[in-house]
Amino acid sequence: MTYCVGLRLNEGLVLLSDTRTNAGLDNIATYRKMFSWSVPGERVLTLLTAGNLAVTQAVISRLQEDIDENIDGTVTLLTAPSMFAVAERIGFVLQDVQQRYGPGLAARGESSDATLILAGQRKGGPLRLYMIYSAGNFIEATDDTPFFQMGEFKYGRPLLDRVVNVETSLADGVTAVLLSMASTIRSNLSVGMPLDLAVIREGTFDFDQYRRIEQQDQNFFNLTNAFSEALTQVFQDMRAIKV
Amino acid sequence: MTYCVGLRLNEGLVLLSDTRTNAGLDNIATYRKMFSWSVPGERVLTLLTAGNLAVTQAVISRLQEDIDENIDGTVTLLTAPSMFAVAERIGFVLQDVQQRYGPGLAARGESSDATLILAGQRKGGPLRLYMIYSAGNFIEATDDTPFFQMGEFKYGRPLLDRVVNVETSLADGVTAVLLSMASTIRSNLSVGMPLDLAVIREGTFDFDQYRRIEQQDQNFFNLTNAFSEALTQVFQDMRAIKV
Repeated sequence: MTYCVGLRLNEGLVLLSDTRTNAGLDNIATYRKMFSWSVPGERVLTLLTAGNLAVTQAVISRLQEDIDENIDGTVTLLTAPSMFAVAERIGFVLQDVQQRYGPGLAARGESSDATLILAGQRKGGPLRLYMIYSAGNFIEATDDTPFFQMGEFKYGRPLLDRVVNVETSLADGVTAVLLSMASTIRSNLSVGMPLDLAVIREGTFDFDQYRRIEQQDQNFFNLTNAFSEALTQVFQDMRAIKV
Repeated sequence: MTYCVGLRLNEGLVLLSDTRTNAGLDNIATYRKMFSWSVPGERVLTLLTAGNLAVTQAVISRLQEDIDENIDGTVTLLTAPSMFAVAERIGFVLQDVQQRYGPGLAARGESSDATLILAGQRKGGPLRLYMIYSAGNFIEATDDTPFFQMGEFKYGRPLLDRVVNVETSLADGVTAVLLSMASTIRSNLSVGMPLDLAVIREGTFDFDQYRRIEQQDQNFFNLTNAFSEALTQVFQDMRAIKV
């Protein structure tokens, strides 16, 4: 399975993905689910992937080939005139891959479903966060609902519901997604380290942070440990309240 | 959907269920999912239900009829010689109901699945907590895994994973299940108030608490509110930690 989360805050975008894939409990592997492209100072975008791995890999490869081949007239992630056009292009490629492999997979009782979270900003446009579905259609995050999750989203949802809104700072957003991920990893074996984190500050058209957080990362350990201890303390403090 | 949780602590048993049922978003209703029987001083038991409502209602009615008809030789919840025999009896009735309605439901593409949590104690025996599946088979909670959840269990799982073990006090157990439920209700519309709570203290063969918690319950509001505020504060305290 997978857990990916993206926030669209006023200050910028925060993206976090795990790296565990599984085809059954006895077939666990590590694959990157975060992919990024940028033209520093002009545009920056990140794509998170969930679902059928062959499908999402095919989508990423096709999008990259479009850029590499640079054929006149092809809309690519780097030349699309807006983030909306970028989302449309990705949706189109996903739809195309689905049409190619979907029937064969369905005939074998397998799902070709894949979902993508797209986040980015283009010079002259606002921050954008999209959720792109298997059919190629997509929805956009708004001020009312400033985050998207994919995969094993339920364990890490209560924390986000409580602490994230559009006015949350980028730093708090990073803490929120890391703690949301930590709760998920703790409760579900199909989501696992290492993690990939991307932070895009509004109006910079570049990455503020783009890094991998390894299993042995001391800062991540300190954070999740401090949170776990504080949560236990809070729980004990609740003894003072009559139920 | 449903959220039910049962804890088997050294001090006793704690059971909590919501009351929301839904056949689609436009068909929401309130049904009790907690059922109890006792012979004060000799045995006490509680059954939580999840899944196909017609199936679980049929099971409860059949179990009650066995008791009411009091036919010689029929093992009932009140005469079974052990909690294991009680679980077996319930599993048998569930299996029987499945055989009666399962094929007809399957032919209509509907599920007859139902799951039950059984908790109780009989004089001369230990506290017991069972999870009974649609096929009538069941598993028992142990010191390593002292709780069972049914239905929308993921939202409320991280808290239980962090704070509940067999040595947790009954009072803390009640707080834990209420907060686990509160997180679930907050994030998922298919789980809703009012709640039913049962607490059985070890060796008393009676209910320590058996009550309904209504939407407007002031204590429940105070608890979830205090927890929500404390959690927000903890989250803000995490700013001191480098990530």
